[in-house]
Amino acid sequence: MARPDPEHFLCQIENGIATVALDRPERKNPLTFDSYAELRDWFRDLPYAEDVDAVIFAPNGGNFSSGGDVHDIIGPLTRMNMKELLAFTRMTGDLVKAMVNCGKPVIAAVDGVCVGAGAIIAMASDLRIAAPGAKTAFLFTRVGLAGCDMGACAILPRIIGQGRAAELLYTGRSFTAEEGAAWGYFNRVVPAENLMETAQDMAARIAAGPNFAHMMTKTMLAQEWSMSIEQAIEAEAQAQAICMQTGDFTRAYDAFVKKEKPVFEGE
Amino acid sequence: MARPDPEHFLCQIENGIATVALDRPERKNPLTFDSYAELRDWFRDLPYAEDVDAVIFAPNGGNFSSGGDVHDIIGPLTRMNMKELLAFTRMTGDLVKAMVNCGKPVIAAVDGVCVGAGAIIAMASDLRIAAPGAKTAFLFTRVGLAGCDMGACAILPRIIGQGRAAELLYTGRSFTAEEGAAWGYFNRVVPAENLMETAQDMAARIAAGPNFAHMMTKTMLAQEWSMSIEQAIEAEAQAQAICMQTGDFTRAYDAFVKKEKPVFEGE
Amino acid sequence: MARPDPEHFLCQIENGIATVALDRPERKNPLTFDSYAELRDWFRDLPYAEDVDAVIFAPNGGNFSSGGDVHDIIGPLTRMNMKELLAFTRMTGDLVKAMVNCGKPVIAAVDGVCVGAGAIIAMASDLRIAAPGAKTAFLFTRVGLAGCDMGACAILPRIIGQGRAAELLYTGRSFTAEEGAAWGYFNRVVPAENLMETAQDMAARIAAGPNFAHMMTKTMLAQEWSMSIEQAIEAEAQAQAICMQTGDFTRAYDAFVKKEKPVFEGE
Repeated sequence: MARPDPEHFLCQIENGIATVALDRPERKNPLTFDSYAELRDWFRDLPYAEDVDAVIFAPNGGNFSSGGDVHDIIGPLTRMNMKELLAFTRMTGDLVKAMVNCGKPVIAAVDGVCVGAGAIIAMASDLRIAAPGAKTAFLFTRVGLAGCDMGACAILPRIIGQGRAAELLYTGRSFTAEEGAAWGYFNRVVPAENLMETAQDMAARIAAGPNFAHMMTKTMLAQEWSMSIEQAIEAEAQAQAICMQTGDFTRAYDAFVKKEKPVFEGE
Repeated sequence: MARPDPEHFLCQIENGIATVALDRPERKNPLTFDSYAELRDWFRDLPYAEDVDAVIFAPNGGNFSSGGDVHDIIGPLTRMNMKELLAFTRMTGDLVKAMVNCGKPVIAAVDGVCVGAGAIIAMASDLRIAAPGAKTAFLFTRVGLAGCDMGACAILPRIIGQGRAAELLYTGRSFTAEEGAAWGYFNRVVPAENLMETAQDMAARIAAGPNFAHMMTKTMLAQEWSMSIEQAIEAEAQAQAICMQTGDFTRAYDAFVKKEKPVFEGE
Repeated sequence: MARPDPEHFLCQIENGIATVALDRPERKNPLTFDSYAELRDWFRDLPYAEDVDAVIFAPNGGNFSSGGDVHDIIGPLTRMNMKELLAFTRMTGDLVKAMVNCGKPVIAAVDGVCVGAGAIIAMASDLRIAAPGAKTAFLFTRVGLAGCDMGACAILPRIIGQGRAAELLYTGRSFTAEEGAAWGYFNRVVPAENLMETAQDMAARIAAGPNFAHMMTKTMLAQEWSMSIEQAIEAEAQAQAICMQTGDFTRAYDAFVKKEKPVFEGE
C-alpha cells in the first residue's frame, strides 16, 4: 500500500534508500509544528515500510537545519500553558523515539547550519557524515532553555563523552566538522561536493546487507542502553539466535562455500 | 543570609562566580578530613546560594591537589575499623554527590599535580581546563587501593571511554594535559598564564546565560545517567517544558525579535 | 590443586601472568565449539586461581583470531534448531561474562587478523595493545548476522562512542591500529616485535600491584555499568572501605613513611 507523499518535508525513495530533507532552504530549513509531526509519523511508519532499507537525512540548499523556527515555533511557545508546552516537548521527543525505533539505519549528511533541533536530528541518526563547512550547535541555552532537549543529555554524552557534551550543552557553542570527527560525532568528513554521494554509497552498502539483522542491531543498540552487562549479553544471545534462523545467514554461508559474494534478502 | 567563610579551603565569590581552591600550596594542596567535610557541606548548600551561578575549582601555587594527605588521612585510615572506614569513604563520596547535585556548573582549572582525590574533584566537575603542565593520576592503586573511589569506575569511563579509564585505574599512571584533551577529559588546554582568565571567561559566559535552565541541564546530565532512551526523552520533555515557562525563554524570544542580545535573569 | 592444561587453546603461566592464545595459526586461530567452551570454563575458574594475577590474550603466528570457524561453527549453525542456536549464543556470551567476572585484569595483545568473535574477545578484555598491522572487524553483518553479538552493542559503544560503534556494527568494516588508538579501542600501538614484551611489561606491572584491589576495580567497572551516579558512589564507598582493611593498604603507607617502594601481597 503506497503511503502518501509527505507535505511538510522532502522525501524521495529509490532502490530502498529514502532521502529526506527539511524544506525552505531560504530560511535554512527550519522545523515547524507541521514538519515535526509529519516526520514523527513518517518514522513511526517506517518499521512497516517494505520499500525502505535505509534513510539519508540530507541537507537542502547547503544547510541541514536551523532547528525550531523562531517565528513559527518559539513565538507561540512563549504564549502556551503547561499542558500545551508538554504536548509540544513530547511531540519533539517522539520524533527522536520514532527515529530510534524505526528499524532502519539513518545516516545524517550534514552541511552548513545544523543547530537546535537540527543538531538533535543528526544526533538521533545512527551515522553522521559532514562536509567541512558543517556548523553544529546544541544552542538551546542561547534561547533561554536547557540542554536537556529531545534526549540530548542522555544521547550526546554516549557519542562524544560526558565532558565534551557538557560543554556544548552549557555554552551552546558551535563546533566544526573537524572537531566533530575527532570526537566521534561525525563518522567522516568529505568535501561538500561528495557529501551526498558518500552518504548514498554508505546507505547502499548497508541496504545491500542483511536488513533483518540490521534492524536487530539498531534495536539492540537502543535496547541495551541502560542494561547491566549480564543482561545485555543475554539479550544479544536471544537476538542473535533469532538472526541465525534467517535465510540471510544461510545465504552468507552458502556463498562463502561457493566462494561467491552473498546476496541478502532481508529475511 | 550570609554564609560563613570556609575555614579549611579558599573561597572567593565575585559577580556570581565562586572561585574555590584547596590550601597549603607548600604541600600541593592535600585534602584533610576537615576540608573534605567542609567542601561537602559547601557544595550541599550551593543549590540555595543565590549569589553563586557558577564555580571555578582552581589550583593554588601552581598545583591543583595532591589528594588525601598521607599523614593526615592515610595514616589514620590504616588504623580505623570498618565502621569508621565506611564513614570516611561515604563522606568522600558525598562530596562528589554534592558537586553533582549542586545545580551550578563547576569548571575545574587544572595545573601541576592533580592526583587521587584531586583528580576525582576535577572528574566530578562539569568542565575541565588544563595548563600544559597538568599531571593527572587516579593513583589509588599505588597506595594499595582500588580504582573504585568516589565514583571513578562509573564517571571516568563516561568521560574518556571504558578502555582508557581501565588503564588509568589499574596502573595509576599519570597523563598529560595533551592526552587528556585528546581523550575528552580536558575541554581545552591553555598556557598556564591564561588558565584562570580562561576559566573566568568561560564561567562568566555560562553565568550570563539562563541559570535556571543551566541548573536543569546539570540535573538531567546526572539524572539520565542510567535511564533507558525512552525514559530520558520523557524526562527531558518534562524538564524542558518547565524551562519554557521561565521568563528567560520569553526574554530570549523578545530580544531576538528586537534584534538585541538577551539579558537573562535566571528565572 | 593444579588445573589440567587446556586442550583446545594455548596457555602458559609464569610469574603470575597467564598467557593464552587460540591455536591453528595456519587458519588464523579460529574459534571452535570446543575452544569456546574450554575458554569459558577456564575464565570461570580464574577467580579461584591463586597462581594467576593477570592474563595476556596473545596472537599466534602473527594473527589474533579469525573468529568462529566457518566450517566448524557457521556450517553447523545453519542446520540447528532454535534450542540449539540459543544454547550456542549463550555459550559464546558466557565466555564474555566469564572474562568480565574473572577478577583479574586481561590485556589483549592484538596483531594481524582480529575479527568476529576475535574482535569480541579483545573488546571484552580490560586493556588492548596493538601492533601496527592489526586489522579488527566486527564483521557479523558480512555473514548475514546482527552486530549484537556477545555484548557488542552494549560494550563497544562504551569504549569508542555510540556513533563509531554503530558504523562498525552496521558495516562490518575493519579498522586499523591507528584508528583504534585514536578512538580509545587500543590503549597503545607498538611495533610488532615489541608487542608481547609490552604486554608482558604491562601485565607484570599490574600484577605487582595490589591484586585484591585490582579485583575490586574490575568488579566495579562492570558492576556500575548501569547504576545511577548515586548508586555507583555508594557502591564504591563500600568497595573501597573493604580495600582499606587489606594489608596492602597498610603496606603502601608503611613503605611511604619509610621512603621505600611497597611490596604488595594481594590481601
